[in-house]
Amino acid sequence: MSQFKTPLTEKLQISLPIIQAPMAGGITTPQLVAEISNAGGLGSLAAGYMEPQQIRAAIVEIRTLTERPFAVNLFAPEHVQEDYARIQRAQELLAPYRDELGLPTETPSEPYLPNFSEQLSVVLDEGVNCLSFTFGLPASEDIETIKEWGITLIATATHLLEAILLEESGVDLIVAQGAEAGGHRATFIGQPEQGLVGTLALLPLLVNHVRVPIVAAGGVMDGRGLAAALALGAAGVQMGTAFLACPESGAHPLYKEKLSQGTEITTSLSRCFSGRLARGLTNRFITEMQAHEAEWPGYPIQNALTRAIRQAAARQNRPEFMSLWAGQGCPLCTTRPAAELVREWAAQALERSNAGH
Amino acid sequence: MSQFKTPLTEKLQISLPIIQAPMAGGITTPQLVAEISNAGGLGSLAAGYMEPQQIRAAIVEIRTLTERPFAVNLFAPEHVQEDYARIQRAQELLAPYRDELGLPTETPSEPYLPNFSEQLSVVLDEGVNCLSFTFGLPASEDIETIKEWGITLIATATHLLEAILLEESGVDLIVAQGAEAGGHRATFIGQPEQGLVGTLALLPLLVNHVRVPIVAAGGVMDGRGLAAALALGAAGVQMGTAFLACPESGAHPLYKEKLSQGTEITTSLSRCFSGRLARGLTNRFITEMQAHEAEWPGYPIQNALTRAIRQAAARQNRPEFMSLWAGQGCPLCTTRPAAELVREWAAQALERSNAGH
Repeated sequence: MSQFKTPLTEKLQISLPIIQAPMAGGITTPQLVAEISNAGGLGSLAAGYMEPQQIRAAIVEIRTLTERPFAVNLFAPEHVQEDYARIQRAQELLAPYRDELGLPTETPSEPYLPNFSEQLSVVLDEGVNCLSFTFGLPASEDIETIKEWGITLIATATHLLEAILLEESGVDLIVAQGAEAGGHRATFIGQPEQGLVGTLALLPLLVNHVRVPIVAAGGVMDGRGLAAALALGAAGVQMGTAFLACPESGAHPLYKEKLSQGTEITTSLSRCFSGRLARGLTNRFITEMQAHEAEWPGYPIQNALTRAIRQAAARQNRPEFMSLWAGQGCPLCTTRPAAELVREWAAQALERSNAGH
Repeated sequence: MSQFKTPLTEKLQISLPIIQAPMAGGITTPQLVAEISNAGGLGSLAAGYMEPQQIRAAIVEIRTLTERPFAVNLFAPEHVQEDYARIQRAQELLAPYRDELGLPTETPSEPYLPNFSEQLSVVLDEGVNCLSFTFGLPASEDIETIKEWGITLIATATHLLEAILLEESGVDLIVAQGAEAGGHRATFIGQPEQGLVGTLALLPLLVNHVRVPIVAAGGVMDGRGLAAALALGAAGVQMGTAFLACPESGAHPLYKEKLSQGTEITTSLSRCFSGRLARGLTNRFITEMQAHEAEWPGYPIQNALTRAIRQAAARQNRPEFMSLWAGQGCPLCTTRPAAELVREWAAQALERSNAGH
């Protein structure tokens, strides 16, 4: 197959301009990450919610499966603001679901997330060569350290101001997350609506105004989307939803089953699962909680409050209470192996664009 | 310049796969329509709000300026549901704006829109060869008549079910309106959210499931967007926002000025101007009325209720009360002549795609 040559493939020393999006919650298994890297793309371990020792174990396992580059994704640490009135109101709203799942009431407390410094230490210690961040960037000392270690630094922008800020911070690649994307909105500056621009509109604007290579995320489901992103000026794509139903994906079997229902599925944006706006398959929990969108505590508190519900729902096979993150392209999901898909998309894109060399 | 050859150019006998979107409210002047058709695209006269004799005069004028094909756009007629409690509440909410603009209180009554049958008669009588509809399709008798007259029929879909219905109704081309698009959402089946899918996700889904050629609308601002749409499987694009600031556009001078403020401008979706969800530049009226989104009467009643306000705002140069429809690509607007833009985009797209022949 012909090789692609874009600023993304050059910077990461990979052969195809396809990054597998970090998808937290156990979806990015070492198998998925490795298969995609082996196929010529860049696998990403979504480590934001993982404890340091889990991250280390996953990296070690990935390395038994591939010698190619892969990325680790972390969440930029943030100030947690505890609002007890909101927490109490959330517990009231969540109580009927706990009852339905047979769960006791519990109020989680700090720490709501694994320790960021320890997560970062593991990544540095393991000599990972590509690190991506969601929800902004860590403190400038951390960025300096990451740069000193020679690690390629990727961060996500949802509007132009964020992209400019990331460029000024010295990131090597910017993922432009369009409104179509599944999972959490990466918005870290301004109002949520400001960060809900469709990929087709967002990409050329960022390409015009920043010099750092831009990677398109949101709505890209196959080689047609890759070709479109390259035509818009992107250096490549980051694809998540398109891998969700692959055999290597760690998504719950019922989650994969929902994704296979073709054109019948739709997505919604909601804060109900984590306190942060995110896009997922519309299910009973999202629908019933829609009216309370403005009442939830912020991330990561709401995320901690719903954790037991989501975990019990997974154990009890109740997808109506799971966070089934998915992008607007989800009706195009397939259940084929990840490596096969990556190779096919690359070939499709080469047919449709002039980016191949 | 090389010629494009797509199902769109073939069906309409035009040389470039670019439709100028119908933009109601005086924007699609005969000059704009004719310039775009003369450049090789398809100009569209947005006649939805025009009285039959105005439509006739505009068609006659366009014909003095071009011999090439152009389209006329009409709104599919719909049942008007008068809800007096909502009308009264809307009048209360609008009263402070009327005061600020020095307008008396008035309650418009039926007819809220020009007579559709008379509009259609003029279009048939004038021998227009391409007719596009927004908000669904007219009654099947009207469609039959249009088809009997040999007119190319275009309609807009915002999700797959709408596209399937339009295909079954016998339309010749379907415009896939992505969530990025400016102006009214064309959604005519299901909930508004169902029709808010980004172009990059919407397009390949429709291409996979309907045989009628698909035209991409929403977020396309230049040749990069055209190339992307072609890569996604579209037969061409429909572009509106990209023409708003052209010298030939009938947009208010202050509307054009706002569009020239580059990266500082943002858009919002709102029902406040017409009762139907539409995307426009975020201004004072949209912002202040955001909390009342669920209270407005439906279209076209709300449209009639705000008409005097919008007209006075235009006369008094108060863009904060005008409906400044614009898509999410608006920061890429330019003030260059329409024909020059169309030719440049086509050349850009040919460079970036393999659709040229």
